Amino acid sequence: MGTKIIGREKKYGAHVFDVYALKVELPNGKVRSYDLVTHVPAVVIVPVTDDGRILFVEQFRMGAGATLLELPAGVLNGDAGSEDALEGARRECREETGYDADSIERIGGFYMTPGYCTEYIHVFLARGLKKSPLPQDEDEFLKTIALPIDEAYRRAESGEMEDVKTIAALMFAQRKIRDGK
Amino acid sequence: MGTKIIGREKKYGAHVFDVYALKVELPNGKVRSYDLVTHVPAVVIVPVTDDGRILFVEQFRMGAGATLLELPAGVLNGDAGSEDALEGARRECREETGYDADSIERIGGFYMTPGYCTEYIHVFLARGLKKSPLPQDEDEFLKTIALPIDEAYRRAESGEMEDVKTIAALMFAQRKIRDGK
Repeated sequence: MGTKIIGREKKYGAHVFDVYALKVELPNGKVRSYDLVTHVPAVVIVPVTDDGRILFVEQFRMGAGATLLELPAGVLNGDAGSEDALEGARRECREETGYDADSIERIGGFYMTPGYCTEYIHVFLARGLKKSPLPQDEDEFLKTIALPIDEAYRRAESGEMEDVKTIAALMFAQRKIRDGK
Repeated sequence: MGTKIIGREKKYGAHVFDVYALKVELPNGKVRSYDLVTHVPAVVIVPVTDDGRILFVEQFRMGAGATLLELPAGVLNGDAGSEDALEGARRECREETGYDADSIERIGGFYMTPGYCTEYIHVFLARGLKKSPLPQDEDEFLKTIALPIDEAYRRAESGEMEDVKTIAALMFAQRKIRDGK
């Protein structure tokens, strides 16, 4: 029982993902073709300032054809994303918001689209922020936006935010930064 | 200003997605190549029973290489997902949980991985459930699991759930089904 991969052929190699055509054997014994995207792991950070704001970034996203409000995030560096996730979170936070964190802790992680893609995102909560910018990727065009914690959660609950990792990461941070107030 | 697509070549056609190599012109005038996955739209449903439980499904997911607990969900039918989203939500709920809903309302939607994929998921809250099964896809192997509302939110906040659409959809439903208690 269980689903077994019995064949695997690479169909396309992109910058952060590859596409494979698989042959799989289902629990009922049937053999099916199956397309799988393999993607390097990534991180998303909930950066909370000492005065009770959460830092977001706004950027144009090709998949949405629109500008979205998101938590800072990015793929891990190194071969197949071998960079340590906590180091990657600290780096992305500095690159995208200009702040380093005295305290950074992993509060969970999730699969993005496990039906057809391997991408997994680790979620970090960053506190004790101090100005310490790293240069941004030269092809990224980001605007940083600070929202009071209550306003951020109002938007995340009401459907005004449209980036799924941002909404789910705020859910993980909820008990630590919202309910404790 | 803004990012413009100036070239587009199809690289791979899969069952629910296609892969395109784009040429884009960035706001700084530079031309870059960019890989984009186009994916049909989908729905996810938060089905709440009259006795205060949320219905989930458990299934093996190729992208995770593991069995995940998720809200019922699926892609819209028809050419490029042309099925009405509310009809699709009602259908998926019946197929995956065996229940139809007296009341079903859209409570939001989100982009899954807008950096490289167009996939958008509409979120529905379903109440007034009554037994009315549709046949499952013959290649799907699902187990339905009912969790009390409090237990579902405890797992979603604690990091025990690892499917991002499930966590974010519960965030949208929170004010309607949790805080009102």
